[in-house]
Amino acid sequence: MQAVTFQAPGEVRVEERPEPDLLARDDAIVNVDATGVCGSDLHIYHGRVAIEPGFTLGHEFVGTVVAAGDGVTQVTEGDRVLGCYCSACGNCFFCRRGDFHQCDDGRVFGHGKTLGSLQGAQAERVLVPHANLTLRRVPEEMSDDAALFAGDVMGTGWHAVDQAGVRAGEAVAVLGLGPVGLCAVQAAKAAGAATIVGIDSVEDRLEAAEAFGARPVHLMEDEPRAAVKDATDGRGVDAGIDAVGHPDALELACRLTRKAGTVAAIGVYAERVQIHMGVVWIKALTLKSGQANVIGHVDRVLAMMAGGLLDPTPLVTHHMRLADAPEAYAVYDRREALKIVMTP
Amino acid sequence: MQAVTFQAPGEVRVEERPEPDLLARDDAIVNVDATGVCGSDLHIYHGRVAIEPGFTLGHEFVGTVVAAGDGVTQVTEGDRVLGCYCSACGNCFFCRRGDFHQCDDGRVFGHGKTLGSLQGAQAERVLVPHANLTLRRVPEEMSDDAALFAGDVMGTGWHAVDQAGVRAGEAVAVLGLGPVGLCAVQAAKAAGAATIVGIDSVEDRLEAAEAFGARPVHLMEDEPRAAVKDATDGRGVDAGIDAVGHPDALELACRLTRKAGTVAAIGVYAERVQIHMGVVWIKALTLKSGQANVIGHVDRVLAMMAGGLLDPTPLVTHHMRLADAPEAYAVYDRREALKIVMTP
Amino acid sequence: MQAVTFQAPGEVRVEERPEPDLLARDDAIVNVDATGVCGSDLHIYHGRVAIEPGFTLGHEFVGTVVAAGDGVTQVTEGDRVLGCYCSACGNCFFCRRGDFHQCDDGRVFGHGKTLGSLQGAQAERVLVPHANLTLRRVPEEMSDDAALFAGDVMGTGWHAVDQAGVRAGEAVAVLGLGPVGLCAVQAAKAAGAATIVGIDSVEDRLEAAEAFGARPVHLMEDEPRAAVKDATDGRGVDAGIDAVGHPDALELACRLTRKAGTVAAIGVYAERVQIHMGVVWIKALTLKSGQANVIGHVDRVLAMMAGGLLDPTPLVTHHMRLADAPEAYAVYDRREALKIVMTP
Amino acid sequence: MQAVTFQAPGEVRVEERPEPDLLARDDAIVNVDATGVCGSDLHIYHGRVAIEPGFTLGHEFVGTVVAAGDGVTQVTEGDRVLGCYCSACGNCFFCRRGDFHQCDDGRVFGHGKTLGSLQGAQAERVLVPHANLTLRRVPEEMSDDAALFAGDVMGTGWHAVDQAGVRAGEAVAVLGLGPVGLCAVQAAKAAGAATIVGIDSVEDRLEAAEAFGARPVHLMEDEPRAAVKDATDGRGVDAGIDAVGHPDALELACRLTRKAGTVAAIGVYAERVQIHMGVVWIKALTLKSGQANVIGHVDRVLAMMAGGLLDPTPLVTHHMRLADAPEAYAVYDRREALKIVMTP
Repeated sequence: MQAVTFQAPGEVRVEERPEPDLLARDDAIVNVDATGVCGSDLHIYHGRVAIEPGFTLGHEFVGTVVAAGDGVTQVTEGDRVLGCYCSACGNCFFCRRGDFHQCDDGRVFGHGKTLGSLQGAQAERVLVPHANLTLRRVPEEMSDDAALFAGDVMGTGWHAVDQAGVRAGEAVAVLGLGPVGLCAVQAAKAAGAATIVGIDSVEDRLEAAEAFGARPVHLMEDEPRAAVKDATDGRGVDAGIDAVGHPDALELACRLTRKAGTVAAIGVYAERVQIHMGVVWIKALTLKSGQANVIGHVDRVLAMMAGGLLDPTPLVTHHMRLADAPEAYAVYDRREALKIVMTP
Repeated sequence: MQAVTFQAPGEVRVEERPEPDLLARDDAIVNVDATGVCGSDLHIYHGRVAIEPGFTLGHEFVGTVVAAGDGVTQVTEGDRVLGCYCSACGNCFFCRRGDFHQCDDGRVFGHGKTLGSLQGAQAERVLVPHANLTLRRVPEEMSDDAALFAGDVMGTGWHAVDQAGVRAGEAVAVLGLGPVGLCAVQAAKAAGAATIVGIDSVEDRLEAAEAFGARPVHLMEDEPRAAVKDATDGRGVDAGIDAVGHPDALELACRLTRKAGTVAAIGVYAERVQIHMGVVWIKALTLKSGQANVIGHVDRVLAMMAGGLLDPTPLVTHHMRLADAPEAYAVYDRREALKIVMTP
Repeated sequence: MQAVTFQAPGEVRVEERPEPDLLARDDAIVNVDATGVCGSDLHIYHGRVAIEPGFTLGHEFVGTVVAAGDGVTQVTEGDRVLGCYCSACGNCFFCRRGDFHQCDDGRVFGHGKTLGSLQGAQAERVLVPHANLTLRRVPEEMSDDAALFAGDVMGTGWHAVDQAGVRAGEAVAVLGLGPVGLCAVQAAKAAGAATIVGIDSVEDRLEAAEAFGARPVHLMEDEPRAAVKDATDGRGVDAGIDAVGHPDALELACRLTRKAGTVAAIGVYAERVQIHMGVVWIKALTLKSGQANVIGHVDRVLAMMAGGLLDPTPLVTHHMRLADAPEAYAVYDRREALKIVMTP
Repeated sequence: MQAVTFQAPGEVRVEERPEPDLLARDDAIVNVDATGVCGSDLHIYHGRVAIEPGFTLGHEFVGTVVAAGDGVTQVTEGDRVLGCYCSACGNCFFCRRGDFHQCDDGRVFGHGKTLGSLQGAQAERVLVPHANLTLRRVPEEMSDDAALFAGDVMGTGWHAVDQAGVRAGEAVAVLGLGPVGLCAVQAAKAAGAATIVGIDSVEDRLEAAEAFGARPVHLMEDEPRAAVKDATDGRGVDAGIDAVGHPDALELACRLTRKAGTVAAIGVYAERVQIHMGVVWIKALTLKSGQANVIGHVDRVLAMMAGGLLDPTPLVTHHMRLADAPEAYAVYDRREALKIVMTP
């Protein structure tokens, strides 16, 4: 079958790879109908996350179950399904508590041996372990484009809002309006946020955030702190979401959040950074971080999408063929796209 | 000043009553601009809740602060304010936990000596104890009609949704589509419910619920259990809200709710009733009841109303003069009105 | 192998039954070292719960894994393990939320076809489905007698306390001091309850509750309401636990619980009963019911037992041989035992 | 009256100060029977926290109400009471949510004008604003020494445990075994922690922690990470408590805490510090900080103390006369005391 493989920093290739086989009783094989290119793929493309040459990329997919072990009970052959970006065993200490993203045996699609040697979904077919947890049936009326988001980007946007504990009537600031930040804006809206301030320095993204219900605030041209004060009777937002993953964003999130509020840092951090703990302490903030518990959220996210509360399809800016993956990566790398959906 | 007083079952009168005086340092006096007639008033009108003849009725009001003790810090003379239906001391065991509706010194406006001898708000002026907690400033753009609901009916609708623990993406059934039930429909929508089933046997109310985003289900002509199964993949709703206060409604709510779900019985109960504990046990339901913690919710409810997430104004079917209160009670008693707003 | 089977109301038999075989990849077979007789077994013995003649009884067991499918990752052959009273699939909507006790495919050991046709544990060996969730390794220093409780009776006692939301410093009333009620007393103590009132009418049980840290209150000879008032500054307990399963116990629990408190009805209910909803409403109580989520609690319960916070061994009043099961059932039926442990 | 006043860094004086007068309707005046010297007093003594010369110090006190305004309903003249370290208005946005420590009008005793110009409690008498919230009656059998802790140090120890979300059966690490850390050890024990690791480099403190139920681990001589792994099956503690207020402690707390666990930084932070956000992110930690919500906790803390779950009296190492305050400060400054109680 055809698959998109990593070769070297800046180089991906579409090449023939062996068909996957069922290995365990709860495995399934999915025939991929649509697969996305995501910011995490770019980390690999740039060589910042090292994986083995020849490893198949991709962790967002929608498709059809073509084979399933006899322990697969939640989906069946012929089902149209979406996949989560990672798998979880369902049995360990963390899974038993619902912390599927911290599974002791968790594996991420398309991230090489450091994240579990699970071949990626930018391919004609993909092997899915623990299919009962990793896959979900796609509601009939939902498009592939929409469903693709439930298992990764929208799941992450919702995770930020869930971690931040956003409840109806509250005020939220979202810092960074890339795909995850824009999904967080939608998720905050869905959770009943009465005020959403969206902060970025890219006009298009500010416009998208506004279309989704946020007050757009330009990071440099506007005054984020003044804008938030104005929107919250001077009190600050109940929840600040750092969808950037940079200490400046994190500090601004802390500044914008009210006393006893919560800051959810959903952007990726890998190193030591300076944090103004004086601010965190004096305001008694709660700070949450980490990758998203997408498996834990996916039922809810699908219900919100099916109910019209979330609609990620405006984020899809490009449709391309799997065969054109090298071009797709180049387009994405030039920041010309918010989300590229590829079809085999 | 003029005030509406209870005289005898079926008889209210507009008569001259003495002006209120500030008694305590945190008292305020409000000049009433609008006051509502509510279902609880009807209980008094019918003689089911006994109060002293000559006692001033009413517990819903919007107006202007005309006097305030020097301990009143949250509002000031000249402020346009709304009142909550009850007062709370802010200092007892229950208030300290935020359970203002269970305050050891709680008093309800217009309910006679059994609920604290607090003269009612269907009057030209009303004395408000513990004004820091009982009053809130009305946002500038908000109408009197809307604000009136925040301190009573909408607060109760939100309380039901809050008690039921409704979160974004969930399914909710609301049984009984009077003013509280309709507000619960709006509140569930605001909290992000993906599916709301509204159940009643009155066409107008079903239409109103549908306009607010619910699927209307006629209690007798439709099949509520089949309708809920159909809307929830056969699983039942996450939360059932009994806004009736009758054991049949409570049992149906239990039947419609999924395993490990919650039933909020916001309708009033005063006696022993039969409950199918077998159903409650086998489904491991949580059952919550009691009057609404409106003081605890009013900031949030106002924020939701100001943000356009809640809009009770369609529930106002009649505007009348305070002087016509006897007619207002008669109209309400004939079930010709959802909400009557009176102006002095 | 030898197994205890139901024959007819009042008649159990020890007879030869076929050895179990592994059927699914996540099955395990456990060689039983100790197995309990429980109140639920008595329901079957009395014919109130109907099961098929010849079906093997029992749902409490400790033993050694002698065979395991290749999908069993959490325990391994040779491990000393305890079993939960039921199995759960780990994959359905309810399991994914951690509500393992409401699993769509849940099965209870030794309860015949109505609860999943899962042969019981009062046998030399028992087949355990979904062994990753249903079994846990027993800490080395823990006795069989103690471990036996973690998967059933102590898990249920903890469930009551967990459902009731008991937190450190609070006051709890436990109504009914059978094995579950006594475990609830211990669990409340472990959760930091400052005041525990234990209510029953059997002297021995009151003494046991006192030994576990409760104030003993005789249902008839003392005045439970006065005793609770006295112990709580007149306020009532934060949480009331009905470990009886009778409407009188439930009503008393509601009467003893403070405003805005919680009543956990852990006793079994199967029918319609009268509840004083006036009391529930006026006090704004939360009422919870249903069987225990033992799989969800078992890690925590084991940690508490290993840490010396819980110790059910004083509840074991009899040790008998599996071959003497008919006598064990007769002893238990005569209420001469709190817990009988049988060894094959 | 006599009072301990700040004069200059390193210099406190006992001098005559005017008697306090009731200023507001909910003020009370307390005749001080016992008052503590605390670590925060040392910050002032060292000049790190600047206050006005002549300002009365102290924020821990037990005494007798000698005067009360007519709005004081929760205590009365003659009552033996304890004070919280700060006052709160009970009416603002934060107080209404129970976040009394973030009160918009919050004031701290004995900290000069930057924290509300509230004269301190190291005096014969102290004026207490918002006495309904700031004071609590002391249970009859409770000693002054014990009660003194409820309104400050033990309230802070409990706050750490509460913020960290410690539940029965869990594992906790407490870093820093000064008075707050030792109280956190007791509080974790009271909340049912099955494993408590206490970390410090002072032998006496490690011994005290061990006496309170912790496993003592010497910061330098032992291996904290290995000790925690050993105590938690290699998983890490559920909750890490930084009772030091230093980035090294915070980083170690993050290292010791399991995936998806919580770190409560109860030690004081005032500046930017380096945090390993890579660790926070990869482990999906929750980080909480800020001063303690003592008013929100004091009922519970008193109940735990009265119930014998918490006992801070072993922390009292010195009793001195108020007249000897300069010596008391010198002793405390030389780290010869854990807690000094002074009596006027």
